[in-house]
Amino acid sequence: MTVRKAVLLLSGGLDSSTCLLVARRDGFEIHALSFDYGQRHSIELARAQEIARRYGAAEHRVERLDYPGRGASALTDPAVAVPRGGDSGTAAIPATYVPARNTLFLAHAAAWGETIGAHDIFIGANVLDYSGYPDCRPEFLEAFERAVNLGTKAGVEGAARFRIRAPLIALSKAEIVRLAASLGLDFGLTSSCYDPDPRGLPCGGCDSCVLREKGFREAGVADPLGSR
Amino acid sequence: MTVRKAVLLLSGGLDSSTCLLVARRDGFEIHALSFDYGQRHSIELARAQEIARRYGAAEHRVERLDYPGRGASALTDPAVAVPRGGDSGTAAIPATYVPARNTLFLAHAAAWGETIGAHDIFIGANVLDYSGYPDCRPEFLEAFERAVNLGTKAGVEGAARFRIRAPLIALSKAEIVRLAASLGLDFGLTSSCYDPDPRGLPCGGCDSCVLREKGFREAGVADPLGSR
Repeated sequence: MTVRKAVLLLSGGLDSSTCLLVARRDGFEIHALSFDYGQRHSIELARAQEIARRYGAAEHRVERLDYPGRGASALTDPAVAVPRGGDSGTAAIPATYVPARNTLFLAHAAAWGETIGAHDIFIGANVLDYSGYPDCRPEFLEAFERAVNLGTKAGVEGAARFRIRAPLIALSKAEIVRLAASLGLDFGLTSSCYDPDPRGLPCGGCDSCVLREKGFREAGVADPLGSR
Repeated sequence: MTVRKAVLLLSGGLDSSTCLLVARRDGFEIHALSFDYGQRHSIELARAQEIARRYGAAEHRVERLDYPGRGASALTDPAVAVPRGGDSGTAAIPATYVPARNTLFLAHAAAWGETIGAHDIFIGANVLDYSGYPDCRPEFLEAFERAVNLGTKAGVEGAARFRIRAPLIALSKAEIVRLAASLGLDFGLTSSCYDPDPRGLPCGGCDSCVLREKGFREAGVADPLGSR
């Protein structure tokens, strides 16, 4: 039996870490992919590295990206304020939106995947809590899957088909926390905050911290990172 | 009247240079995008720079890419031979195929485009002479256009829709040469060879040189780069 390789987009946050444990449970050999694209919170990359090692990824690739959309998002431009206290919940698209990010990340995953023979691509996208991000919607993921299958050898030679797998797509944050707990995720390793302090501690006030806190509370699970 | 911005993928070759002149003729303000991804023929980038300047691009961005598919193609791996004398014409996909290249390039173009407000993306893809490349097919370009419109603000806010424009898609190489000549392209600036010598001169024997020579011959136009 050949091992089935998967590329997994790993940010070091709760969702992508949970996704890694799901892929591992489902028997995939995991090739984790992270990006250094000038994001504010470089603690993410350190966490991603640790999570990949701890949970047995076959390899972890960190790609440096000359990200074209850098200056347009609160996550990459220090001049744009990170929204606080869930106040971006009513906006159509949050200020933390990064232009075409998942299109870009999935394209890199596909290019690497085709190179190493991994046609399953895992992404921790989740539509319920982040419905403002267009690139977390299932209709986008399906359209991308179709495009990449037409635009690669996979689509012509038919030997393998790319599958974009988003196992958390329909889960609430509380369900993700419960799933992660059942798979043994060490929550203390994950970093969700959009604006952590220099030691990597969460701010407790950004949208991501607020969602995380709510998720743990509703799941009845204690978050070792806690709120301060 | 507002100027309509376009991102144009510019390799420095005949096709993308012709594409630039078409976009300019059609009134677009051109934001040229090239990639430094470890390609063998770095002469391309110097030519792209010169072409962007000569033909009035508003700006020219060269993005360094940590290309994941590097080792898989004759264009990026010195250990893989560049096919000679049109002998890859019968293969399903040539050895010069780079994994998911246009998916990746278009994703970067979209991310940059969304950032600068350019929703028209020009690509010199051409299906007739390069039918072996899956990512030069119109069905791929259409599927990608659909995906990127679903995965960006454009798709949600509806203010602008991405258009992937491939004006050379159905032209033969001879037709491209004639079109370029009619638009005043200085052919001597373009570089098509997959394996140029250290001075940047074309080898005359690779698939790309063979196609170019045939195109000029059929168009009845003299190529200043000639064959040696």
